[in-house]
Amino acid sequence: MNFNQSNCGACRMGAPTVTPEEHEALMQEVPMWASIDIDGVQQLQRHYTFKNFAQALAFTNALGDISEAQDHHPAILTQWGKVTVTWWTHTIKGLHKNDFIMAAKTDTLFL
Amino acid sequence: MNFNQSNCGACRMGAPTVTPEEHEALMQEVPMWASIDIDGVQQLQRHYTFKNFAQALAFTNALGDISEAQDHHPAILTQWGKVTVTWWTHTIKGLHKNDFIMAAKTDTLFL
Repeated sequence: MNFNQSNCGACRMGAPTVTPEEHEALMQEVPMWASIDIDGVQQLQRHYTFKNFAQALAFTNALGDISEAQDHHPAILTQWGKVTVTWWTHTIKGLHKNDFIMAAKTDTLFL
Repeated sequence: MNFNQSNCGACRMGAPTVTPEEHEALMQEVPMWASIDIDGVQQLQRHYTFKNFAQALAFTNALGDISEAQDHHPAILTQWGKVTVTWWTHTIKGLHKNDFIMAAKTDTLFL
């Protein structure tokens, strides 16, 4: 099964964040994403560009549908011609494998 | 006419940003907004809270409709239960009276 077809498993409070080794391996699955640190919380972020505001907002909505279906929600910054998506797992204050799966699903949606 | 019913006038390249006096007066019209400086660009920002992701996304879409109608677009950060809206005028790298009008319209939409 392709990585982007995995499902986002339940992530309970106290679940471990990915190890440095897992992080390195999982980044290979989402090469267009940047791993960033915001106030000590590791996150995955990617910018997508569009022709106008309407197309950007349509992408935001499509991503919203996936997020609701998986019950895992990103931060989506919608601007004219640009959407910035940031994934992390609030309950564990960092990255879970789920976040990488959702990043891959976001890439597939964009394609 | 109420401030939030004003229309967002055309803003051409080279139009002046608001003066400090105008800025102070216009802030009175949108008291819930913060005036922030991002890399030297003055912007208006407000956080709105919602019960869940779907309500936050619905607000993002409603704001998108207004933005398209006025042909002036904010940065809209949609998260679970929260939307952060930021207004400024890209062409003049700062705040135009239009941005305050749009902030007031955003408040009205939230109500």
